[in-house]
Amino acid sequence: MQRQAAVWRNAAQRVVLVPTMGALHEGHRSLIRVARRKARVDGIVVVSIYVNPLQFNDSRDLKIYPRSLSADKQLCREESVDAVFAPISLYEKDASVVLVENDLTTCLEGKCRPGHFAGVMTVVAKLFNLVCPDFSVFGEKDFQQATVIKRMVRDLDFPVSILLGPTKREEDGLAISSRNLLLTGPQRRQGAVLSKAIEFSRQSLGSRAVDLKRKLKRLIEKEPDVRVDYIEFVDTLNLKPVKVARKGNRVLLAARVGSVRLIDNGLL
Amino acid sequence: MQRQAAVWRNAAQRVVLVPTMGALHEGHRSLIRVARRKARVDGIVVVSIYVNPLQFNDSRDLKIYPRSLSADKQLCREESVDAVFAPISLYEKDASVVLVENDLTTCLEGKCRPGHFAGVMTVVAKLFNLVCPDFSVFGEKDFQQATVIKRMVRDLDFPVSILLGPTKREEDGLAISSRNLLLTGPQRRQGAVLSKAIEFSRQSLGSRAVDLKRKLKRLIEKEPDVRVDYIEFVDTLNLKPVKVARKGNRVLLAARVGSVRLIDNGLL
Repeated sequence: MQRQAAVWRNAAQRVVLVPTMGALHEGHRSLIRVARRKARVDGIVVVSIYVNPLQFNDSRDLKIYPRSLSADKQLCREESVDAVFAPISLYEKDASVVLVENDLTTCLEGKCRPGHFAGVMTVVAKLFNLVCPDFSVFGEKDFQQATVIKRMVRDLDFPVSILLGPTKREEDGLAISSRNLLLTGPQRRQGAVLSKAIEFSRQSLGSRAVDLKRKLKRLIEKEPDVRVDYIEFVDTLNLKPVKVARKGNRVLLAARVGSVRLIDNGLL
Repeated sequence: MQRQAAVWRNAAQRVVLVPTMGALHEGHRSLIRVARRKARVDGIVVVSIYVNPLQFNDSRDLKIYPRSLSADKQLCREESVDAVFAPISLYEKDASVVLVENDLTTCLEGKCRPGHFAGVMTVVAKLFNLVCPDFSVFGEKDFQQATVIKRMVRDLDFPVSILLGPTKREEDGLAISSRNLLLTGPQRRQGAVLSKAIEFSRQSLGSRAVDLKRKLKRLIEKEPDVRVDYIEFVDTLNLKPVKVARKGNRVLLAARVGSVRLIDNGLL
């Protein structure tokens, strides 16, 4: 990969990377289109596909994570992706260096999933060093992740610009995610309540966050198989909790639907 | 710096980086010559000069660390260095991402100086991302550091090859170090005992490490102002302690000479 990246660099070709864990869906497709636009006609779009063990704090979650490499390649072909980078493994047995972040990752997903963001940052740093992209595209669906990656790029001076792509949703509002494949039919329908909670938040500007969180939890847990992990109203830039839900803030939430953990978020 | 690095890259020029904290001496000069040879006539040698606060666990040590930018620039001119990168500061106020290593850094300097290697790796990662070198030169004098940097490059896939330059010594054997400037005349003379300890180790191949360490400590602490921090015989590749000092192993030692902490090491 690094040798190929050097060839592109020597030809002065713009390289745009879309890092994924595979099981590609319409959300990824839209990120790939963001990448294609940025790469322009003569630039290179690289999609990496790697289910990164280091970011799974739960070994069962890693085991059942959906994998579909042939279908993924087909989607990449449809979108005129120039290269798919799908390594078997990215870690030496005695690997001992990781990236850690100690401000943005102490809350939300970072609190629920210890070590998760260290794993994400470490693999993204490796992908940046292997692919040497000029731009890299991340989904707003994983909003804390996108914020952490932007911080990592800033703090370590990676010569990469980060682009965000908006969350893609099913007709009933459910944010598209590879994990949706793990839901049963009834769970799938119940999952839509998360986007309804975001919609409800948007209609409650000016409310105290503590009150709104209580209401949203009640709304969400009316669904028999859905249990809230967290609901938080935050400043979009630094992810610090806000007292009052105002325009420009963001609501972030995580819930278990049966045994499947889903996250979603939205700008107010 | 990053813009200039892009210019070099677009011209397909080989870039070789020598990261330093300034107070340049004959040891640095020899590293710069290693870099010059590797860059060849038409390549670029960059010397970075930055007293990295993040790697100082002791604020007094940071405060008294010698600084001599004009003399440093003069030495770089003498050695036909192409660019000196001497940033005022490399960190945002709310910087929150660091690199950590949890195998090689649990011993020796890592144990004596908590956070030191996280600071070293973080600044080196930043310098690699800012200068985008093909090669980077480190001194064997800081042997654990060189080992940690090689591990970092391997584990994070930095597209940089690491070169090591041998330790330069004064006539009496004292390893050349910027910190030698902080020694008084008598301390300066006593400091030479560290290299004598290395020499003694080389003449004691086959001895049990535990016995040899006791002898060396006695030898070193005969000097009135010198107190040992650690003496260790290790496997050169993984820095694990060995039981018997054999050819190919390495002795690493640290001592305080007055209030100045010196380190040295040698291949057996």
